[in-house]
Amino acid sequence: MDVYDAIKKRRDVRSWFSDEKIPDEIISKILLAGHYAPSVGLSEPWNFIMIKDINIRKKVRDLVNKKRCEFYNSLPEDKKEKFEKIKIEGILESYVNIAVTCDFNRKGPDILGRAFIRATSEYSTVLAIENMWLAARSENIGIGWISFFNPEDVKKILNIPDEIKLVAYLTLGKLTEYHDKPELEEKQWEKRHNLSEYIFMDKWNNKPDDNFINIIKNSRI
Amino acid sequence: MDVYDAIKKRRDVRSWFSDEKIPDEIISKILLAGHYAPSVGLSEPWNFIMIKDINIRKKVRDLVNKKRCEFYNSLPEDKKEKFEKIKIEGILESYVNIAVTCDFNRKGPDILGRAFIRATSEYSTVLAIENMWLAARSENIGIGWISFFNPEDVKKILNIPDEIKLVAYLTLGKLTEYHDKPELEEKQWEKRHNLSEYIFMDKWNNKPDDNFINIIKNSRI
Repeated sequence: MDVYDAIKKRRDVRSWFSDEKIPDEIISKILLAGHYAPSVGLSEPWNFIMIKDINIRKKVRDLVNKKRCEFYNSLPEDKKEKFEKIKIEGILESYVNIAVTCDFNRKGPDILGRAFIRATSEYSTVLAIENMWLAARSENIGIGWISFFNPEDVKKILNIPDEIKLVAYLTLGKLTEYHDKPELEEKQWEKRHNLSEYIFMDKWNNKPDDNFINIIKNSRI
Repeated sequence: MDVYDAIKKRRDVRSWFSDEKIPDEIISKILLAGHYAPSVGLSEPWNFIMIKDINIRKKVRDLVNKKRCEFYNSLPEDKKEKFEKIKIEGILESYVNIAVTCDFNRKGPDILGRAFIRATSEYSTVLAIENMWLAARSENIGIGWISFFNPEDVKKILNIPDEIKLVAYLTLGKLTEYHDKPELEEKQWEKRHNLSEYIFMDKWNNKPDDNFINIIKNSRI
């Protein structure tokens, strides 16, 4: 698939997972796409834990259900109704879950480019996740990133050591439906804004000239 | 360009920037690719500051030069020699610099999916950066991510408010050379490891069976 197509058609999905198996060869390609990501000082700080065991997944799903209630209760009344219609996880229905972690000690202490911004290790792991997401999209596989939990609770379930950071918990599967819009837009939870609102020139709050703003507004990928 | 091709051929570059102009239409497409990234709760927390002003860039380059010395001095003797050969920034030679920031207050307090992991906003911004990197590669434009500075110092130069996080400082330009290997591998700073070392099954430290390990080792994208 063309890279712009994959970027445009990629969705964060929790619904419409089919029962179809994903061949190991395809999972492997998706993981390899992640492994080709840039990493600070070539530190490759990532690990990928593939979770097929349904009992482990049930434990994670239980954590999410609990936090779903907590979030629901924290919402103002007008948002509660919208939130009720939104599915926030497909942990059991997806074919495989993948936990993605960051090891700050990988390849020793002298990581080139990390001395002054420690988070660059975590950021490397996130870059890998976007590669996986796009590779998956090109294989017609949906990914949902789940974050309704305290990461320390998930680390306990997966035996992840204290010094390793859990960056993401992903759910992957073939889909029965592909949607053009993000689910949160379809269900009127939130709107997308035009890119031109988010661009500055040379300094914060300094808007580009009208010519460039028009180019952005007319840009398509 | 095919998405796997872009993933495989993408490099983090500091050298070989040419003098060629990048048309605004192409910059716009790269920014739009970033804007199509997944964001927690559809919060789109990013801003992109395009920096063309050479005097601003000189100020950032001066910060980097200072930190380069600091890092050099912190290294053990055997690594100092290798580090001397490595170019760590192309701030002035590149066509444009882009600072990418994260606004934790974008679209209000009830961001769906962020309640329990605040960093998901930063992570969204990093996902956008990988989209930009791949889109740029498909346009034959190189990107280098610079992190040799205290982000607070760069924020002052760019007038970025206290409450906004500077996530990345990127340098973009057409290239005179395209390399197959990362520069840090070419200059023997660090080696890439095989993906199979980084994969676990169901729990941390639980290796996949030999069959899956072989599939990973034979996987190509």
